[in-house]
Amino acid sequence: MKNLFSKSRVEAFSDGIFAIIITLLVLEIKVPHISNYESSQELMQALFRLLPKFTGWIISFFTIAVIWVNHHKIFKQIKHFNNGIFWLNALLLLWASFIPFPTAVLGDYPENIVSIVLYGVVMASMALSFTLMRIYALRHPEVLNEDVRLDSFRKGTWLSLLFGPVTYLLGAGAGFLHPWLAINVYLAIPVYFIFAENQQQ
Amino acid sequence: MKNLFSKSRVEAFSDGIFAIIITLLVLEIKVPHISNYESSQELMQALFRLLPKFTGWIISFFTIAVIWVNHHKIFKQIKHFNNGIFWLNALLLLWASFIPFPTAVLGDYPENIVSIVLYGVVMASMALSFTLMRIYALRHPEVLNEDVRLDSFRKGTWLSLLFGPVTYLLGAGAGFLHPWLAINVYLAIPVYFIFAENQQQ
Amino acid sequence: MKNLFSKSRVEAFSDGIFAIIITLLVLEIKVPHISNYESSQELMQALFRLLPKFTGWIISFFTIAVIWVNHHKIFKQIKHFNNGIFWLNALLLLWASFIPFPTAVLGDYPENIVSIVLYGVVMASMALSFTLMRIYALRHPEVLNEDVRLDSFRKGTWLSLLFGPVTYLLGAGAGFLHPWLAINVYLAIPVYFIFAENQQQ
Amino acid sequence: MKNLFSKSRVEAFSDGIFAIIITLLVLEIKVPHISNYESSQELMQALFRLLPKFTGWIISFFTIAVIWVNHHKIFKQIKHFNNGIFWLNALLLLWASFIPFPTAVLGDYPENIVSIVLYGVVMASMALSFTLMRIYALRHPEVLNEDVRLDSFRKGTWLSLLFGPVTYLLGAGAGFLHPWLAINVYLAIPVYFIFAENQQQ
Repeated sequence: MKNLFSKSRVEAFSDGIFAIIITLLVLEIKVPHISNYESSQELMQALFRLLPKFTGWIISFFTIAVIWVNHHKIFKQIKHFNNGIFWLNALLLLWASFIPFPTAVLGDYPENIVSIVLYGVVMASMALSFTLMRIYALRHPEVLNEDVRLDSFRKGTWLSLLFGPVTYLLGAGAGFLHPWLAINVYLAIPVYFIFAENQQQ
Repeated sequence: MKNLFSKSRVEAFSDGIFAIIITLLVLEIKVPHISNYESSQELMQALFRLLPKFTGWIISFFTIAVIWVNHHKIFKQIKHFNNGIFWLNALLLLWASFIPFPTAVLGDYPENIVSIVLYGVVMASMALSFTLMRIYALRHPEVLNEDVRLDSFRKGTWLSLLFGPVTYLLGAGAGFLHPWLAINVYLAIPVYFIFAENQQQ
Repeated sequence: MKNLFSKSRVEAFSDGIFAIIITLLVLEIKVPHISNYESSQELMQALFRLLPKFTGWIISFFTIAVIWVNHHKIFKQIKHFNNGIFWLNALLLLWASFIPFPTAVLGDYPENIVSIVLYGVVMASMALSFTLMRIYALRHPEVLNEDVRLDSFRKGTWLSLLFGPVTYLLGAGAGFLHPWLAINVYLAIPVYFIFAENQQQ
Repeated sequence: MKNLFSKSRVEAFSDGIFAIIITLLVLEIKVPHISNYESSQELMQALFRLLPKFTGWIISFFTIAVIWVNHHKIFKQIKHFNNGIFWLNALLLLWASFIPFPTAVLGDYPENIVSIVLYGVVMASMALSFTLMRIYALRHPEVLNEDVRLDSFRKGTWLSLLFGPVTYLLGAGAGFLHPWLAINVYLAIPVYFIFAENQQQ
């Protein structure tokens, strides 16, 4: 079985996309317009009104950094890049490259349940792409490196389903009780991945 | 005959451009403005009105992913990067980097025949650049790797003309009967490439 | 102790982000609108009114180039990329990717103390991330290359604190006396790094 | 004499910037607004009015592609990346990353002598950065590869001054006679580089 795709080019292409997404996020925060150009009070108030946008930006920034880390970890375990892996990776990139849109909607309508559910559903779909990639690799274990232990990989697959799509959808559901409940879940997920990883060492 | 260009730098440059194009597409989808900030019904309706933009974005996303795959495949067969190959590759990048514009026009005017024809003509020109690169290589076979079989490469060249420029122009023509006929052709082309490739394994 | 992250991928990811930030800066300078399309006088005056934006753009451009150089230098000294180094690097990228926003605010409100302090505080936070990365490496010297001399690295850490966060905050403070005092400090910092480096050879 | 900078990282950083600039250019072409959404005649007329913007985009696209080629050629001849070479390269990147702005100004005011001169002056400054890099290398020949012939490199330096800054300034001057004279010179320069290179083989 030959490698259909050069791993390094797929990696570079994916990394390029992640780098661009994470940098574009800040473009959605527009400079506020104030009437009195020299009024420090007015400009400070205008910046404070951007607080929901800053919050959304920081959450999405760390989420994409975590996506990059998870992408890095799963790619280290994959040896053969066939069409199945490539197009599931493309599906992940599709959802990841969409993140600036729900982030901007959430920043503009932070109290609106539709923007809260939209954000959760997009993130759940993105996270599900990871799980699909893992399920595909479990069914075609020839794409994995020889040193990957299948039982441990299978366990990781179920954990990725639980701490990814399931938690995002529960978070979106919690938004119906109160918007900030959902926001906290969306923030907690990347924070969990950052610190859970640290403990594993 | 020496390599005028470092293959890895041309590859990295092209990959960077593809990664940026595929990520910029989503920037053309602007957050809708609604009058009542907390109305979930109004926001949902506003998002549904963006459906043509989402459709255009997904079609262009997978089209660029397919361009990347085809670019990857043709580059694997080329050994020497001389000026001819380089500038035909630049022509491909010119058309590829233009894709966000016809995509945005199509998203804004999905029922207008001009935007439908524009999209098809740009894609046909992009696809034609691939065919031109292949024709150039057939006329200068010294740029190809030793293991490339010329008869198979020639057959692939005609297929690339048929499933690229010709189909895009037929799709654009079908738009005169009904806009959605053209849209379906534009969607079918990347889908064909994704699944035709899968079957070849 | 194994490398958790591939150094080359972390480097490529960071370089991609720096390249995007430095290029996006110019997008914040919008083409001016003038009423008489063919009046050269009107267009020239409109371009001159953009002078604060050009100034901010040039300062931020060289600041990011200096960040890249410092990042390059610190990465040359690091051998093991564990979670600590990775996430402190992510913190640096967070602040660096934010730079287009305070640059745009400063370009729009160059005489407003709030935009001047905002710029200085963001740059101080970015610079502090470098110092934190160095402090982390001092406490976990196993992440450093064998040829790094710890006493020299410790001295460099205090210098990075002094010529980074401390100077930026002093500059922001000087802005209360006169805006241009702060601007000059913000410009002087990258200029210092460019020429101090040159002298070290 | 040691390499202060890793050549591959400086190359990757520069390539990233060129790839982003060349792709961002198209973002300056905005989708036109028409009153009757389904009028094909109105949309076609609106697209034709964008002709100056398309012209500017194509000229800048090929100019940046030529910059990339020249950058590639000069980097092949440089062995040691010290601070002098690095910061002259940064100066080149500064002017190159600025190109989207004069391109957009030219697209909006194609008949205005100010936008024509602005475009020529920016391009002349960018081209001058190449010449400065070459002059620096001539004065510090230890940065060059051993196989570089200094007399040929010196001749190339004067040619780069002639076909770069001098021609751009002459082109800008010709704009005072008629705008399209300047535009033709701006187009002729990258075309010259594309075909002059082809003949050298």
